Amino acid sequence: MSEQLEKAIQEAQEAVTKQGDTVEVDAAIQKLAELKLSLESKQKEFEKATGKVSGQSKEALRAALAGVLERRMFYIPSFKIYGSVAGFYDYGPPGCAIKQNMTQVWRNHFVLEENMLEVECPAVTPEIVLKASGHVDRFTDFMVTDAVTGECFRADHLLEGHLEALLEDKKNPVTPEKAREIRELLASVGELKQDSMGAALKEYNVRAPGTGNDISPPFPFNLMFKTSIGPKGDMVGYLRPETAQGIFVNFRDLLYYNGGKLPFAAAQIGNSYRNEISPRAGLLRVREFTQAEIEHFVNGEDKSHPKFASVADLKPLLYSRELQMGEEKKAQPMSLGEAVSRGIIANETLAYFIGRTWLFFCKVGVNPQRMRFRQHLQHEMAHYAADCWDGEVETTYGWVECVGLADRSAYDLQAHTAMSKIDLTAFDKYDTPRMVEVVKVVPNNKELGAVFKKDQKAVKEALEALDEASALALQAKLAAGETAPLKTCDATFEIKPGMVEIKKVTEKVTGKTYTPSVIEPSFGIGRIMYCMFEHSYYTREGDETRAVMGFRPVVAPTKATVFPLVQKPALNEVAAKISRELTAAGLSNLIDTTGNTIGKRYARTDEIGVPFAVTVDFDSIEGDGSATLRERDSMAQVRVPQSEIASVIRALVDERTTWAEVAAKYPAQKATADEE
Amino acid sequence: MSEQLEKAIQEAQEAVTKQGDTVEVDAAIQKLAELKLSLESKQKEFEKATGKVSGQSKEALRAALAGVLERRMFYIPSFKIYGSVAGFYDYGPPGCAIKQNMTQVWRNHFVLEENMLEVECPAVTPEIVLKASGHVDRFTDFMVTDAVTGECFRADHLLEGHLEALLEDKKNPVTPEKAREIRELLASVGELKQDSMGAALKEYNVRAPGTGNDISPPFPFNLMFKTSIGPKGDMVGYLRPETAQGIFVNFRDLLYYNGGKLPFAAAQIGNSYRNEISPRAGLLRVREFTQAEIEHFVNGEDKSHPKFASVADLKPLLYSRELQMGEEKKAQPMSLGEAVSRGIIANETLAYFIGRTWLFFCKVGVNPQRMRFRQHLQHEMAHYAADCWDGEVETTYGWVECVGLADRSAYDLQAHTAMSKIDLTAFDKYDTPRMVEVVKVVPNNKELGAVFKKDQKAVKEALEALDEASALALQAKLAAGETAPLKTCDATFEIKPGMVEIKKVTEKVTGKTYTPSVIEPSFGIGRIMYCMFEHSYYTREGDETRAVMGFRPVVAPTKATVFPLVQKPALNEVAAKISRELTAAGLSNLIDTTGNTIGKRYARTDEIGVPFAVTVDFDSIEGDGSATLRERDSMAQVRVPQSEIASVIRALVDERTTWAEVAAKYPAQKATADEE
Repeated sequence: MSEQLEKAIQEAQEAVTKQGDTVEVDAAIQKLAELKLSLESKQKEFEKATGKVSGQSKEALRAALAGVLERRMFYIPSFKIYGSVAGFYDYGPPGCAIKQNMTQVWRNHFVLEENMLEVECPAVTPEIVLKASGHVDRFTDFMVTDAVTGECFRADHLLEGHLEALLEDKKNPVTPEKAREIRELLASVGELKQDSMGAALKEYNVRAPGTGNDISPPFPFNLMFKTSIGPKGDMVGYLRPETAQGIFVNFRDLLYYNGGKLPFAAAQIGNSYRNEISPRAGLLRVREFTQAEIEHFVNGEDKSHPKFASVADLKPLLYSRELQMGEEKKAQPMSLGEAVSRGIIANETLAYFIGRTWLFFCKVGVNPQRMRFRQHLQHEMAHYAADCWDGEVETTYGWVECVGLADRSAYDLQAHTAMSKIDLTAFDKYDTPRMVEVVKVVPNNKELGAVFKKDQKAVKEALEALDEASALALQAKLAAGETAPLKTCDATFEIKPGMVEIKKVTEKVTGKTYTPSVIEPSFGIGRIMYCMFEHSYYTREGDETRAVMGFRPVVAPTKATVFPLVQKPALNEVAAKISRELTAAGLSNLIDTTGNTIGKRYARTDEIGVPFAVTVDFDSIEGDGSATLRERDSMAQVRVPQSEIASVIRALVDERTTWAEVAAKYPAQKATADEE
Repeated sequence: MSEQLEKAIQEAQEAVTKQGDTVEVDAAIQKLAELKLSLESKQKEFEKATGKVSGQSKEALRAALAGVLERRMFYIPSFKIYGSVAGFYDYGPPGCAIKQNMTQVWRNHFVLEENMLEVECPAVTPEIVLKASGHVDRFTDFMVTDAVTGECFRADHLLEGHLEALLEDKKNPVTPEKAREIRELLASVGELKQDSMGAALKEYNVRAPGTGNDISPPFPFNLMFKTSIGPKGDMVGYLRPETAQGIFVNFRDLLYYNGGKLPFAAAQIGNSYRNEISPRAGLLRVREFTQAEIEHFVNGEDKSHPKFASVADLKPLLYSRELQMGEEKKAQPMSLGEAVSRGIIANETLAYFIGRTWLFFCKVGVNPQRMRFRQHLQHEMAHYAADCWDGEVETTYGWVECVGLADRSAYDLQAHTAMSKIDLTAFDKYDTPRMVEVVKVVPNNKELGAVFKKDQKAVKEALEALDEASALALQAKLAAGETAPLKTCDATFEIKPGMVEIKKVTEKVTGKTYTPSVIEPSFGIGRIMYCMFEHSYYTREGDETRAVMGFRPVVAPTKATVFPLVQKPALNEVAAKISRELTAAGLSNLIDTTGNTIGKRYARTDEIGVPFAVTVDFDSIEGDGSATLRERDSMAQVRVPQSEIASVIRALVDERTTWAEVAAKYPAQKATADEE
C-alpha cells in the first residue's frame, strides 16, 4: 500500500514540477493548484497509512479538551433545555471573560496603536446595502435535498465525503486512473459551478446520507438570515454576513472625520450571521460569530507604510503561492522585509498587517510555530483582488483559517458608488500644483445642431466622453480631411471636420481624485479562541488526568486565586482582604475556602487556566506577613509580602515584569508533596 | 388662563388627597394614578402658560448638542448613503469609544466587583424560548393603519397626540368637563386594552396624520424581528428582544457552575432588537440597542444581601409610590437603609442594586441631582412582580427610563420549566436535618381496584395529589364513617372508609427544593449615553459658540491631546514621544501638529470632551524639560516633567488622584489670553 502511494506521490510531484516551468497564465496556475491539492491528499493518505501522524491521538486530544471546555462552561450549545439548535453556542463565564480579554487586546493592539477609527453599526441591514456588495446575489452555497425526506445537505460536503469514501474503499478499490480523476475532482470541489456540481453528483451517483434516497440537483442557497424591517412588511432586511459593509457605507463621513486625509483605517468589532446549511466543528463553523475587521483605505498608487520598518525583521511562517506549488509543500520563515522586496507580498501595507497580525497571535497565546500565512492561489482570489493571505493555525481539525488579509483594490467603494450614486472618492492634493498636458474636446454646437438636429445632445456627450487615445485618433482622421464614425448608445454618427475641435493643452492641476484601495484584515474571534484553546491545553507531567489550560495571563479569565491553607477564620480574613485588593487593582480573582487539599484546589484552577495562586498560611498572620505566590506552568512558588501581592500580579498580567524577575526578587518556597 | 388652571390644579389635588385616604385596593390605586397623571399634565400646562419652564431653551439645547454629536460623529443615522432607515444608528469613533468605556466601567462595577457569572448568548433565538417567556404572544404594541395609504402608526402615540391637541386648541376650547375626561383618558392610554383603545380612537374621531384619512381599528403588532433558522425554512426564529432569556435558559448550568450554591448573579451585555412601529427621539427609541442585564437568583424566603451595609447610607432621590400619590409629586433623597426598614423598597437585595446603580450613574457622569428611582405603581407592574423601580434621568425629553430594577419573583424560571419540562429548581440544604410533620396519603389499591376498575389509576393519583388541608378534611369525614366526593379531571368519585389511609407522620428533612426568585437590574446603554451627553454638555462662560463635552475621564473617548506650541520639528518630535508614552500606558490620545492657535486646538478637543491636554514648548526641549498639562473644565494648567506625564494622566483617569492633588503638587502655569 505505502509503496503504491509513494509512487503516486512521485508521479504527482513530477507533474507539479513540469507544470511549474510553464507558469504563465491563469489556466496553468489553476491546473497547478489542482495538482498540488491532489498531491496533498496523497500525502495525507500516506501519513495515515504509515502512522506518521496519529489520527487517533488527535481525536483523543480533541475529546479531552472538549471535556474541559464543556465541564468548565467555556462554551456550551445554546438553548440546551430546548434541545439546542446547531451552530449556536453560549459562552459561559470563563469563555466570556477570555473573549472580552482577547477583544480588548485586539483593540489595544490595532485600534489604539494605529489610531484607527472604530465604528459600531447595526447587524440588521437593509437589502440595498447587501445588493450593492454582491451578497444578495452571490453569498450562497450549493444545497441538495433528500428527494423523500427533504433533509438538506451542502453539495460540496456531500460530494467530498463520497469521493473520499471511494478512495478509501479497500473492498472495491478504484483503478489508478479513476483514483487520479477523483483526486483532481476533489481538489476543485470548492470552485465548481452549479452545472458541473450537478454533473459530478450525477456521475458518481451520490445519494442522500442515511437514507440512500435520490437527491435533488444542487441549487444555490443564500446564507443570509432574512427579516423584515418596520411594521409594513415591505422592507427586506438581512442580518449582516460581515461587519465590513458598515465601514464602507460610512466611508464619506469617516474621511471627513479624518480631515479628508488618507491613508486611514477604520475598524469594527461585532457579530455577523451566516445561516450555514450544516454547521459543524464546534466554534469553527457557527451561525452567529464575532468578527473584528479593519479597512485600511489607501491611495492605490502608493501602498507603502510609514511603520513598515517596525515589522520588517519579523519572520513568520509564509506559505507563498510559490511554496505551495513547490516540492516541499511547507511554509518557510521569511522576514517581511525580504518578502516585500522580493515581490512575494504585494506591498508594504499588506505586509505590515501580516506582521501585526502575527504579533497579535503571539500575544494571545497561539503558538507561532503552528501558525502560517498562506497566500491565495490565483484562482482562489476574486477578480478584483490584488493579493490575499490567510492567517492559518494548525489544530486537530487541520489548518484553520482564522484571519483573512486581502488587498481588495477599489472594488467595495466603487460598488457602493454604483448603487448609491454617492461619490466615494478621495482627493490627493499635490504639494505643489502640477502642469499636466491634457486632451480637450470642444464640440461645435452650431454645426452639430444643424446636422444632427434632435441627436445633437447625444453626439455632443459621446464626443466629450471619448478617452484621450480615441479623441486623438479621431482628430488625426479629421485633420486628414476624412470623416469618422462615432458610436452612441443607440446609433452611429458620421463626424466631419469642423464639427469638433480636439487639442492638447497644458493645465495647472492641484491634485487628483481617486477611489481609494482598501486593505482588509478580517479576524474571526471565535476561531482564534478555539485554536488558542488547543494550543494552551496540556496535562501535568506524569498525570494525564490533570488538565491545564496554559493561558497567557493577559487573556486568562481569572488572573489569580486566593486560598487559605486551612479553614481558619483568621486565614479566611486575610484571604478576603487580598481578594479585595486584587479586585481593586482590576484583577479578576476567585477565593476558595473549601476544605479541599491545596493540591485539589490547584487542579481545579489549572483547568480554567488561572496563572497565579496566592496561598495564605500562618506566617501570613503571625510570621512575616508574607503569602505564597505560585505560577501555574512552572509550579514555582515564592514568598511575597502581602502588601505587594496585588501590584506584583498586576505587573505580571500587564507584562511589565516576568516570572523570572519575580522569582529572582522574592525568596523561593518549596512545594510539599501533598500540594502537587 | 393661569387662574383657571390653578383652580383646576387645586381641584385635582383635592381629588388626589381624598383618594389617598382610602388607598386599599388596586382599583383605588389605579384611580389615584390616573388622578396623579391628570394633575401632572395640568402642572405642565401651567408651567408652559406661566413660562416657568422654557420649552424653547430645551429645544435650543437639544439642537446645539445634536449639532456637536453629529458633526463629531458620536453617532449618525445608519446607511446614510442609501437614505437611512429609522431607528438605526452607527456609533462613530468617539461614540464607539465612550460606549466601550461605559461598558467596561459597568463590567468592573458589577461583574468583577460581585463575581457575577457573565455569559454571552446568541441574538438569534428559536421560537420556543420566546413562546415560553411570553414574548411571542404578548410583546406587542397596538398599531393602526391609514385606510388609504396603508401607512402605520402606533395607536397610543396617535391617541395621545390627538388628545393633547384637543386640550391645547385655543380656538375651539373644550368644556372643563370634557377636559377632565380627556385628561383621565390621557393618563391611562398606556394601559388600554384593544377594545377600549379602538373605542377611544372612534369616540374622538382620530384620523391619519398628514392625510386625514380614516384609520383601521387598532391591532396588536409583535415587535420582534422574525427570521428563519437553517436551510429548510421550517424553524422560526426571532432576534431576541432582551438578553435576559439567555440567562434563564442557562440557569441549570450556571447553578452547577456555581457549585449548586445560591444566591448568585449572572450578567449579559449584548444587543437586543425591537422592530418599533415608529422609532423617534434619537438614541432613546431604536430598533437595535445594547443592553446590560443582571439576573440575581435568590431564595424567595431570604432576600437579605450580605453587602447591603455598603450602600445603606447612600441617599439617592427616591420617588416612591407614596410620593407619586402625595401632594408634592417630587422625589426625595432617602437613605436606602431607611427605605428598606420602612418597607418602601421591598428587600435588601433590590435596594442594594438600586444603590450600586446610583453609584454607576455617578461614575459615568450622570448628574445625581437629575436622576431618580421611580417605583412602579401597582397597576404598572406585572402580576407576578414583587416590586419594581425605574432608574430615570432628567433630559430635554423629560424623565427617561434608563434602568429597570425588578423583583420578578420565580416567574421566569417557572415559565421555562413549564415549557421545557426541565427542572429549574435549587436545593436549600439545611445546616442540620429537621424533623417535619407531614400528611401521608396511602391509597388502598386492592379496594380501589375492586370498586373503580379502570378508573383506579385516576382515583389513586387524585388522592395522592391532595394538598394537606384537603387530605385532612377527607380523613375527618372518613373517620366519622361518612363518604366524600373526590374530583378528578373527568369525573367525581365517592370515596368510602377503608379506601385510603391518611395519617400525620414526622419525617427527617435535609433541605428544601424551591424555584429561585430573580432580582433583575436591566440597563439600556444607549439611553444612558444620551442622558450623559445632555448632562455633560455646556458652553464656555461668555462664549455660547464654544461647546464643551465635560466627560468624566474614565468614559472620555480620548484621554489626552498633545500639541506642539508652534510648528517646529524639534517640538513635533517631543510631542510624538509623549504620544507614544501615552499609548504605551493604554491612554488613547491625539496629536495635533496643525499650525492653528492653541486656543483653536483646545476648542476642537473640548467638543469631543478630551479631559487633558499636553502642550510642548521650547522649555520642553531647552529648559527644564517639562510640558504644560491642562485640565479641560477648570482650564487650569501646571508644568509637569515629561517623564511623569503619562503616569500622572493614567492616575487621573483611574481616579487614583484628583486634579486638585496634581495642581497642588506641580507648579501652576498661567494661560495667555490668546490660548483661551
